[in-house]
Amino acid sequence: MTIGIIGLGLIGGSMAIDLRRAKFADHFIGSDRSELNAQTALRIGLVDEILPNEELIQKSDLILLAVPVNAATRLLPEILDKINDNQIVVDICSTKEKLVDSVHYHPKRKNYVASHPMAGTEFNGPWAAVPNLFAGKAGIICNAEDSDHNAVETVTKMYDALNMRVIYMRASHHDVHTAYVSHLSHVISFALALTVLDKEKNEKNIFDLASGGFASTARLAKSNSDMWVPIFMQNKQNLLSVMDSYMERLTQFKKALEENDEQTLRSLIDDANRIKRYLR
Amino acid sequence: MTIGIIGLGLIGGSMAIDLRRAKFADHFIGSDRSELNAQTALRIGLVDEILPNEELIQKSDLILLAVPVNAATRLLPEILDKINDNQIVVDICSTKEKLVDSVHYHPKRKNYVASHPMAGTEFNGPWAAVPNLFAGKAGIICNAEDSDHNAVETVTKMYDALNMRVIYMRASHHDVHTAYVSHLSHVISFALALTVLDKEKNEKNIFDLASGGFASTARLAKSNSDMWVPIFMQNKQNLLSVMDSYMERLTQFKKALEENDEQTLRSLIDDANRIKRYLR
Repeated sequence: MTIGIIGLGLIGGSMAIDLRRAKFADHFIGSDRSELNAQTALRIGLVDEILPNEELIQKSDLILLAVPVNAATRLLPEILDKINDNQIVVDICSTKEKLVDSVHYHPKRKNYVASHPMAGTEFNGPWAAVPNLFAGKAGIICNAEDSDHNAVETVTKMYDALNMRVIYMRASHHDVHTAYVSHLSHVISFALALTVLDKEKNEKNIFDLASGGFASTARLAKSNSDMWVPIFMQNKQNLLSVMDSYMERLTQFKKALEENDEQTLRSLIDDANRIKRYLR
Repeated sequence: MTIGIIGLGLIGGSMAIDLRRAKFADHFIGSDRSELNAQTALRIGLVDEILPNEELIQKSDLILLAVPVNAATRLLPEILDKINDNQIVVDICSTKEKLVDSVHYHPKRKNYVASHPMAGTEFNGPWAAVPNLFAGKAGIICNAEDSDHNAVETVTKMYDALNMRVIYMRASHHDVHTAYVSHLSHVISFALALTVLDKEKNEKNIFDLASGGFASTARLAKSNSDMWVPIFMQNKQNLLSVMDSYMERLTQFKKALEENDEQTLRSLIDDANRIKRYLR
């Protein structure tokens, strides 16, 4: 099988590494809007050749669209216009509903499988690509009934090859869930980083005291805006709703503190500890 | 040297491991209000013997007070009442100002060194103790001029033995800094865990989708209330102030989202990315 990867960043690159190693495909073609990224991906062996999109699309059995979701929204219909009946297009974007809606009536809709591997790091670009990024994580396939059965099977096998747990969901449902378990975490970290960086303007040594707890809570604040602004915009309603819930909880902490209400503080924390069932 | 450790949890236990290995002391006496913790610490070799506080205090050259700050506030004057001129008492609590204020006029104030090793994990109890917990982190000594010069030197050497960077600070200053780089991160994580756990009541599978980003941002939510309620209460004013700054930042995100203001979202995120200078 020949896989064409449009977007040679963290996800596209890491998938190339693992799919090659798993012998899921034997030839990898890449393209990227950044010439530097494309050449880097080639040089570090993520892909076997770089081609313009037109040729990549012609020569690939499966086209992996691994770009930020605003670019995917633009490119997806263009790609679907060009493919034949046997080719498969799959995306990896972090929001799904607007994207699937935008191509709902496309004549080649069945060739498109909407998916999202729930894995990543805070880094980006081809040199961020790592092996085993996906192992044990969830690989979501959305609105599978709108895709060709064989296409869904192929993409399921692709996620199996990455050692992911394949989960089938409605796109709208997916976007609610990811607002909670991914998008909110990113906003939280960005806001934390900004708060402490503000203080650093007057307190040059504030980071001297930072330890692992700060590092892990602020880690996602290293994530880049090219990827995250489109995600936030596309999942706006869900994210606003989740942020309201989160800010209510912060207000509860604030109120308990203001009122010296140790009882409430204790029970908020004990309640939060139930997260131990889900996090090792 | 004989070190007496009151409180055989994560910090007391981990310090015992490293100080023994560094040959900073050759005999370790322990005590803990929980008989189970005490016996566990003995059995896993964190300390050489368990004694009641009275005897521990008598027999130790250096007494390490490794208990939650509310217990420390109660115990510290009692310990200072009992020691002779050559003994040293050092605490490891996460808040410093109220504690040093409470013993400011104690006749044996000079024998007490107020300190805080900026290290930890989200786990607690003697079985949470690990080697190398402190290496490379900051070991804070507060209000050193109120302690005996030799006592400060001994405690500095102790933190050297743990491979910590020793930093001398005012206690009030310390509490402002830790509100930013530690206490806020904990509140943030507790609130995130609560928000997602609330959703889980209706969405049983929400955690199926959780990935590394959620795990790292919610990690501190596993921390326990015995330690954190006293810390929040003692650092209340600083924490409320920091929470206000943080919630302002969240509100900025919210407003930018509501107004479809991609420009502002982008610059908030790009600004937050400056955290890369401080986090690997």
